[in-house]
Amino acid sequence: MYFFRNDYSVSCHPKVLEALAAVNGENVVGYGFDPYTQQAADLIRKLCNAPQADVQFMVGGTQTNFVSIAAFLRPWESVITPVTGHVNGHEAGAVEATGHKLLLARTPGNGKLTPAAILPILEECKDQHLTQPKLVYISDATETGGVYTKAELSALSYCCKANGLYLFLDGARLGCAFTSQANDLTLADLAQLTDAFYIGGTKNGAMMGEALVICNPELQDGFFRFKKQQGAVLAKGWLLAVQFLALLQDGLYFKLGQHAVDVAQYLQGGLKNLGIPMLVDSPTNQIFPIVPDDLLPKLDELCAYEVWGKADNTHTTIRLVTSFATPLEDAEHFLMDVKNLT
Amino acid sequence: MYFFRNDYSVSCHPKVLEALAAVNGENVVGYGFDPYTQQAADLIRKLCNAPQADVQFMVGGTQTNFVSIAAFLRPWESVITPVTGHVNGHEAGAVEATGHKLLLARTPGNGKLTPAAILPILEECKDQHLTQPKLVYISDATETGGVYTKAELSALSYCCKANGLYLFLDGARLGCAFTSQANDLTLADLAQLTDAFYIGGTKNGAMMGEALVICNPELQDGFFRFKKQQGAVLAKGWLLAVQFLALLQDGLYFKLGQHAVDVAQYLQGGLKNLGIPMLVDSPTNQIFPIVPDDLLPKLDELCAYEVWGKADNTHTTIRLVTSFATPLEDAEHFLMDVKNLT
Amino acid sequence: MYFFRNDYSVSCHPKVLEALAAVNGENVVGYGFDPYTQQAADLIRKLCNAPQADVQFMVGGTQTNFVSIAAFLRPWESVITPVTGHVNGHEAGAVEATGHKLLLARTPGNGKLTPAAILPILEECKDQHLTQPKLVYISDATETGGVYTKAELSALSYCCKANGLYLFLDGARLGCAFTSQANDLTLADLAQLTDAFYIGGTKNGAMMGEALVICNPELQDGFFRFKKQQGAVLAKGWLLAVQFLALLQDGLYFKLGQHAVDVAQYLQGGLKNLGIPMLVDSPTNQIFPIVPDDLLPKLDELCAYEVWGKADNTHTTIRLVTSFATPLEDAEHFLMDVKNLT
Amino acid sequence: MYFFRNDYSVSCHPKVLEALAAVNGENVVGYGFDPYTQQAADLIRKLCNAPQADVQFMVGGTQTNFVSIAAFLRPWESVITPVTGHVNGHEAGAVEATGHKLLLARTPGNGKLTPAAILPILEECKDQHLTQPKLVYISDATETGGVYTKAELSALSYCCKANGLYLFLDGARLGCAFTSQANDLTLADLAQLTDAFYIGGTKNGAMMGEALVICNPELQDGFFRFKKQQGAVLAKGWLLAVQFLALLQDGLYFKLGQHAVDVAQYLQGGLKNLGIPMLVDSPTNQIFPIVPDDLLPKLDELCAYEVWGKADNTHTTIRLVTSFATPLEDAEHFLMDVKNLT
Repeated sequence: MYFFRNDYSVSCHPKVLEALAAVNGENVVGYGFDPYTQQAADLIRKLCNAPQADVQFMVGGTQTNFVSIAAFLRPWESVITPVTGHVNGHEAGAVEATGHKLLLARTPGNGKLTPAAILPILEECKDQHLTQPKLVYISDATETGGVYTKAELSALSYCCKANGLYLFLDGARLGCAFTSQANDLTLADLAQLTDAFYIGGTKNGAMMGEALVICNPELQDGFFRFKKQQGAVLAKGWLLAVQFLALLQDGLYFKLGQHAVDVAQYLQGGLKNLGIPMLVDSPTNQIFPIVPDDLLPKLDELCAYEVWGKADNTHTTIRLVTSFATPLEDAEHFLMDVKNLT
Repeated sequence: MYFFRNDYSVSCHPKVLEALAAVNGENVVGYGFDPYTQQAADLIRKLCNAPQADVQFMVGGTQTNFVSIAAFLRPWESVITPVTGHVNGHEAGAVEATGHKLLLARTPGNGKLTPAAILPILEECKDQHLTQPKLVYISDATETGGVYTKAELSALSYCCKANGLYLFLDGARLGCAFTSQANDLTLADLAQLTDAFYIGGTKNGAMMGEALVICNPELQDGFFRFKKQQGAVLAKGWLLAVQFLALLQDGLYFKLGQHAVDVAQYLQGGLKNLGIPMLVDSPTNQIFPIVPDDLLPKLDELCAYEVWGKADNTHTTIRLVTSFATPLEDAEHFLMDVKNLT
Repeated sequence: MYFFRNDYSVSCHPKVLEALAAVNGENVVGYGFDPYTQQAADLIRKLCNAPQADVQFMVGGTQTNFVSIAAFLRPWESVITPVTGHVNGHEAGAVEATGHKLLLARTPGNGKLTPAAILPILEECKDQHLTQPKLVYISDATETGGVYTKAELSALSYCCKANGLYLFLDGARLGCAFTSQANDLTLADLAQLTDAFYIGGTKNGAMMGEALVICNPELQDGFFRFKKQQGAVLAKGWLLAVQFLALLQDGLYFKLGQHAVDVAQYLQGGLKNLGIPMLVDSPTNQIFPIVPDDLLPKLDELCAYEVWGKADNTHTTIRLVTSFATPLEDAEHFLMDVKNLT
Repeated sequence: MYFFRNDYSVSCHPKVLEALAAVNGENVVGYGFDPYTQQAADLIRKLCNAPQADVQFMVGGTQTNFVSIAAFLRPWESVITPVTGHVNGHEAGAVEATGHKLLLARTPGNGKLTPAAILPILEECKDQHLTQPKLVYISDATETGGVYTKAELSALSYCCKANGLYLFLDGARLGCAFTSQANDLTLADLAQLTDAFYIGGTKNGAMMGEALVICNPELQDGFFRFKKQQGAVLAKGWLLAVQFLALLQDGLYFKLGQHAVDVAQYLQGGLKNLGIPMLVDSPTNQIFPIVPDDLLPKLDELCAYEVWGKADNTHTTIRLVTSFATPLEDAEHFLMDVKNLT
């Protein structure tokens, strides 16, 4: 059975495991005050061309999202997010649990937010009986595989700066976003255009871990204490740093992202050739075929996937996801199997 | 230089790393809904003789403490804890950040809570303008190395039940508590006498991870959603389960605890023989020598340790901690070195 | 200038002031443990035919909404509300500030929620990575003047019970809802069909104050402590009780509501006769005329009102509100003035 | 029976009621955006010689305390308070419910905080695993009747400024503090020495209401939205302003405080003459006699009072409180009655 359900089903890339094994037995200082963490943070600052940035490692994406957002905001401030944003639809109310309202912006198709979707929310919230919008949450790639161009992110960034909003970019799937054909952004661009973003490890070769880059110096004070308070400080902090060193030192991170994207694009092209349309044309490692409902039982036997929603009365949109660990052969064989099915 | 600063300075026991390596490459279901997690939970239920228990794995101690406490309480309810409790003194206000007040009980010397310290707090809180005490937090071992006997824990448990309080036991250092000479408790006892407790992995051989055992069925509903909301669900949940399987299947967990205790006790005995008194007589892996202040600079060169506080004008209490990874030879050589110093 | 901006622009009905004056000088027990509070609570229980109910007085509507909701819910539970619900659009994120997510249901036109709008939300939230919907918030009247019939509320109540949801009814404008022609509900019906609701005083003759009726005994425990914690216990609790006694003892409350409704309906009829259409046909004290944009500057001189939103490129929906204190003559003269304008 | 239980047992001074009656019937703008509120805020700014101050009216003391504190702090910041502080002992965990830890400082006898009690807490909290102390909470008068001198408050203020701490003064009983013989502070001094303080109305002649003065401009942004979010914006905001205008325009506020202090001091002197010692020598409207236990049943028949605590095996400390409404004759007759008892 082929595994296309998600991109966090395999522990980690062998080089990551090797790196973890290499430090085993050493006595290391706790809580991220160790040399590995320092080294990984320095490397990330260099890759981002952002010497002023604070780099903080956390274990997972939901944690990184709400800890950052809640650290940056005052209690009456709120978050503008696409309706489809991960913070709205997949994190069990984590942001609201820290006391902050989400203001939902409509984002057609690819889930990418635009200034046009932000401005009416700002207008409405001039009413002092409402919360003060203060942070814009986006992700790259989006939940439906959308990838921001430099022009789009620059426009968002400008809109945010002009309106006193922080721009926060969830990079849980940054590895695939950055290696997709649609991308023309660099880490240095992100460091310049956002107030904070993170480089996701969990979904791109690490056992676990996200590297948060707080670019805006105003947002750096007190972060460690808050992270500790939210249970987001790993006692053995170096375990995260060591993984990011393995992934980022020689570009492994982007090689893994590229592989996942390539396999997904191969799948998408193949399925389209078989006459299966897509909900959106995704340039990343997540694709969204619309399949006839009577194909689903056969697909169930063939592979692990997720139902995304009803497309019409007789069709269902499904999500297929690839990862660094998905063999290209799986995609090849899967396409042949589907061809035989249809 | 000898490392006696803490018990979380080494990544993990080699067998734990082997176990992690063994599953690498497999496609596994996410979020703890996988067979390894099921297997580890079953094993723990069996070891605890508690088939009704819910077992939840989390990454670290602070997280396990506040997620549990906040999941169990209504917003107006509060927590009775020793002043020296980890939740009060080392977790950056994590419990209060979930909205719950800590009510501080005095616990002389070894940090162990007693019914006598609880009852006056209950009396005072009959006043409806105060919070409702609802949960008693203790840890075994305590922050100063105290270990609860079965008689003591039974008395606490009875007091809690009689007063409608939940009893929660932080077992971050359970491995050393249970292998100390002072202990006569079993996991089955804990499951019977507490409403919830956890088996700490981070400080006893695991890379990271705590296994929370929710013994009281009333406290089990909704826990997963809350854990998710608090960023405490690891996407690759099996990584924690696999470590606990390695530690608990053949008793490795307790062998590692025993080793740490043995080395610490050897150190404690040796230092006492050298005329160095202890703040408390600790039966576990943490000891608290009172040393002359002029010895400190030499100690700084000799080993990593923590200053615990001033003992008097010319003496300082320090904390020495051993772990599964502390060689007995280190203790032997250290004692010789100290002997030469004094 | 006529005042149609809102229904809380006049302090209170003279009889309420008299009642407050009558107790001035007395020494009364604080925090709502006084005989007046007891008497008012008993009266409300009797009017509601709900001897089991707990009655709690609070100062204002936002406070009553979030204190109730947060008292009733566990941290991972969420609230289903119409998009147009007061808790969503006018309370500065008060519910989210207590940690609970709002799940927004579409309610066409009159703002009334139906089982059909609830069920898909429940379906989606079976996913354990989402919050658990647990409370349905509605208001009677709604923000756009909608009034629930007994059949509609019974259907909602049944849907809630069948799905383990609490039903909470915001009665900030209950006086006008209950005296509108569209109403066939009684206080006893509310007590039977909801888990909690409140009788709004602020917008119906009281200086301030809402009387929360917690019908469901399971939701009553600990409420006072939580109310205190949220700053919602008035030191001189009797001040609220005395006002509700004045309003409810002889039916003054409903006479005042009736007056406001009558004046608003007179206005609505008159404006329709003048050819001015309504956004919705409202049976209560709030009406929503759609006026040509060039009329607005003249209206600005004529009366105080609120802009509700753009109706089309050349028309604007406005809101006119009447209260117990709006003279019928104001409505008469206003209609003549508008006739002369158009 | 004499009423010495508290200073909030009588609704309000007749002039306050007259002022409320005088505006009844008027149409006024809501939520504190009305001319009365503007006028009262201007008056308070003038009395405080603080043109930069923001003045915010709220209904009660607990509300004013936690809304202010939570508005001023970031989530990882904490509050230093005397153990005996109202926020710690009487507000049902309201501050913790907003997520902030209280750090308890010992204050012998009169409950007054000193730099000496603050500094060790700051020292301890240099540890980044703890919260960041950021606000010092004091009250004038304290819970045991202590009154700060200008020298004492200046020292505290200096200590706070030097250590980056906000100084917040709870003035629930400011009327009595300022009219006690121990006082040499003015409102202008408070405005200069604190970051925020409030002038308590509830316990000094108003029906309800506290006037918060936010002296530090850095703390003013966003306050209204947060106040709204916390249910602390009164729809009919002018009701609070009108009361403060009545109290402050002609010095009535301080006359009422003076009366309460005079009666309490008369009581204190008289009881001491009868050989009854005091727990502390209080210069305000609260006194703390230590009475033989066998006198208590007779006192119960004579007057309403509060038990403060056991003094020794055979004596109890009680609290007697006077207010603007306590007749001097009550004190005279009470003393005669006590004389007859003993």
